[in-house]
Amino acid sequence: MEKATRQSTKEHNRNLVLKNVFEHETISRAEIARITHLTPTTVSDIVATLIEEGLVAEIGVGPSYGGKSPILLSLQENSRVLIGLDLAHNQFCGALVNLRGKIHQAISLPVDERSGDGALSLVYTILDRLIASASQPLLGIGVGTPGLVNTREGVVIHAVNLNWTDLPLTHLLEERYHIPVSVLNDSQAAAVGEYTYGKDHHSDENLVVINARHGLGAGLILHGTLFQGSGGSAGEIGHTVVIPEGGLPCRCGKHGCLETVASAQALIIQARAQAALHPTTQLPHDPEKMNLEVIEEAFAAGDPLAQQLVLATARFLGVAIANLVGVLNIEKIVLSGDMTRFGEPWLNMIREVMLKSSLTESAHGTQVEIGELGESSILLGASAILVKDYSLLFKDQPLDGERAIQMGRY
Amino acid sequence: MEKATRQSTKEHNRNLVLKNVFEHETISRAEIARITHLTPTTVSDIVATLIEEGLVAEIGVGPSYGGKSPILLSLQENSRVLIGLDLAHNQFCGALVNLRGKIHQAISLPVDERSGDGALSLVYTILDRLIASASQPLLGIGVGTPGLVNTREGVVIHAVNLNWTDLPLTHLLEERYHIPVSVLNDSQAAAVGEYTYGKDHHSDENLVVINARHGLGAGLILHGTLFQGSGGSAGEIGHTVVIPEGGLPCRCGKHGCLETVASAQALIIQARAQAALHPTTQLPHDPEKMNLEVIEEAFAAGDPLAQQLVLATARFLGVAIANLVGVLNIEKIVLSGDMTRFGEPWLNMIREVMLKSSLTESAHGTQVEIGELGESSILLGASAILVKDYSLLFKDQPLDGERAIQMGRY
Repeated sequence: MEKATRQSTKEHNRNLVLKNVFEHETISRAEIARITHLTPTTVSDIVATLIEEGLVAEIGVGPSYGGKSPILLSLQENSRVLIGLDLAHNQFCGALVNLRGKIHQAISLPVDERSGDGALSLVYTILDRLIASASQPLLGIGVGTPGLVNTREGVVIHAVNLNWTDLPLTHLLEERYHIPVSVLNDSQAAAVGEYTYGKDHHSDENLVVINARHGLGAGLILHGTLFQGSGGSAGEIGHTVVIPEGGLPCRCGKHGCLETVASAQALIIQARAQAALHPTTQLPHDPEKMNLEVIEEAFAAGDPLAQQLVLATARFLGVAIANLVGVLNIEKIVLSGDMTRFGEPWLNMIREVMLKSSLTESAHGTQVEIGELGESSILLGASAILVKDYSLLFKDQPLDGERAIQMGRY
Repeated sequence: MEKATRQSTKEHNRNLVLKNVFEHETISRAEIARITHLTPTTVSDIVATLIEEGLVAEIGVGPSYGGKSPILLSLQENSRVLIGLDLAHNQFCGALVNLRGKIHQAISLPVDERSGDGALSLVYTILDRLIASASQPLLGIGVGTPGLVNTREGVVIHAVNLNWTDLPLTHLLEERYHIPVSVLNDSQAAAVGEYTYGKDHHSDENLVVINARHGLGAGLILHGTLFQGSGGSAGEIGHTVVIPEGGLPCRCGKHGCLETVASAQALIIQARAQAALHPTTQLPHDPEKMNLEVIEEAFAAGDPLAQQLVLATARFLGVAIANLVGVLNIEKIVLSGDMTRFGEPWLNMIREVMLKSSLTESAHGTQVEIGELGESSILLGASAILVKDYSLLFKDQPLDGERAIQMGRY
């Protein structure tokens, strides 16, 4: 008991020191002591261990404010590596990512209608290849997947396209690779990615990331932390009903969900249906040839039907964001996913409708922007969540179910 | 500097001890030491001061698990008093409340079309009377008001009915009464009230309280804390647009807001309009005589029009709650406000529509219940928020702007 407490204090102090090394480009031992309220001796001892482990290095001397110039410490961002995985609709993407979110190596494989065990095999293939090519110690695997996820238990409750139900993905991957694994809903992962590695966000900030691609969802960062809700599915705005009467059927079983009118999938379905009725449109009349790329081309060329269809998705998103802002009073909204290819015109329509649909006072000052990480936000977020648990950076960290669960809690 | 740190440590430790006295019916010094990790001596010293100040008393002896039987401590809930105020539509209600949320004395005065300075005078009248009759030391005043509130700065940004815009209510009341004041949106206050004094809620729990009365709003308790959003107006669901085309005008300036179809005000307006068209209804045909009481009577008597109108409000609330559950994945929803008078039939319709409109996985297990505090939830919540800052319980606590701001942060 006594011993356990001492061990946990040691771990706690080490995590505190690491947190400060992570959060600063460079930092001195004295500054760490000042911020953490640890004694200079404790800080020095911990830093010595971190240097020995190669996680931290002395990189120079800082300015002196009277007294000796302080030695500056810096995270050795390439001393460890993580894997981030994004199980996107058409292709699964994986990457080796360093401790500062830089991608060292990426693999992308087409899904080709695989689902169930086939999709799982594709995950294994990507991971096998990435692990084989990792030249630094690998800390863990973070997976961003579409669908409802119980992150705490590491279970994909339901992912329609992948035909996964109650799949214990964390358990399967930890059994196979013997390193910690965290599984996250893809939109939640995008939010963690943009918050951690995107534009400078203040700590303790509120941020909503709307991830509009084949599916549509949001990730909520509230007071600097991913908010997952009671069951882990917070942010599932794609399945809020926006057309109460006569909406299109949704893959979730309901009708008129936001996803049926504002996602990439919805846009392609609409474009197929409407192109047949518009002889003069530049959009292909062959449904097989309809995809986001050709819609983007037609949109950029000013094709009226493409314009109308794309901006219709933006209008629905604008209303949805207005409602989110109304409920949560969040001042920063970041848009992510491949619908962002429609750029400024799409973004401006979203902003315009959001302002029109909002309580003036709440929307006033709300910034809506396109994210900076592009399609990488999900795999970066999935990997970033692993680093939030600094204990993973312990040498000889054993795989431990309890820790994996804590990790999932972010 | 050194001294300030020592002072803040002392305050911190005192707050820790008080927190544990508050959170337990009875507790021993040893248990406090165990939970807080403070030394037995520090705990004893702090407890001695608290006993001297009359905040805590020794109330008996607990069971021994080997060794001496521990002396049990208990909060002296009547040793201090708070004021809670609810600026409801037709009448302002105020009460003296003890440290455990028990109401000692309540006053309720009709608003009678007062607004602006007239409404403010009515607030003063109630406070003057309550303060005059307080027989214990008064710790502070908590106000729950309709409208948009910046709690941090204590400003009512906009309250339409009261005709208040940018009213620095906290400042005005602190100037007048020289005690700490906290101002909160009424629905947020209701949420704090139900969370603090309603049915047992686990700490760190998520809870949404929907406050349906003249206006309509929600209060969000996320991980055990009131979430106010970036600008303080989180929970403003009354002004999300639910009828995008052709909805009724809302007092916020938009059309088709949830408040125009699901609030008490909306119900009365609808009842007036519809009664004129239904000769056989039991509802009064004289618009002047239409109010919630007569609608409740007709509803209870099975009048078809009353049934239809009341259940229509429930349907809209059901969809709104489904959307909230979709966004936030909250498993506990508590209904508050005077629309709750329509009881089980209203509640059951809300539940039914919520389940039908939700993603099955999220709604599964979501409990929707009518709150336990009735109309008191707002004034109790407004007063409870004062106690969350245990430093208010310091003897000779000076009024201090910085503290009032912190207090507002909950």
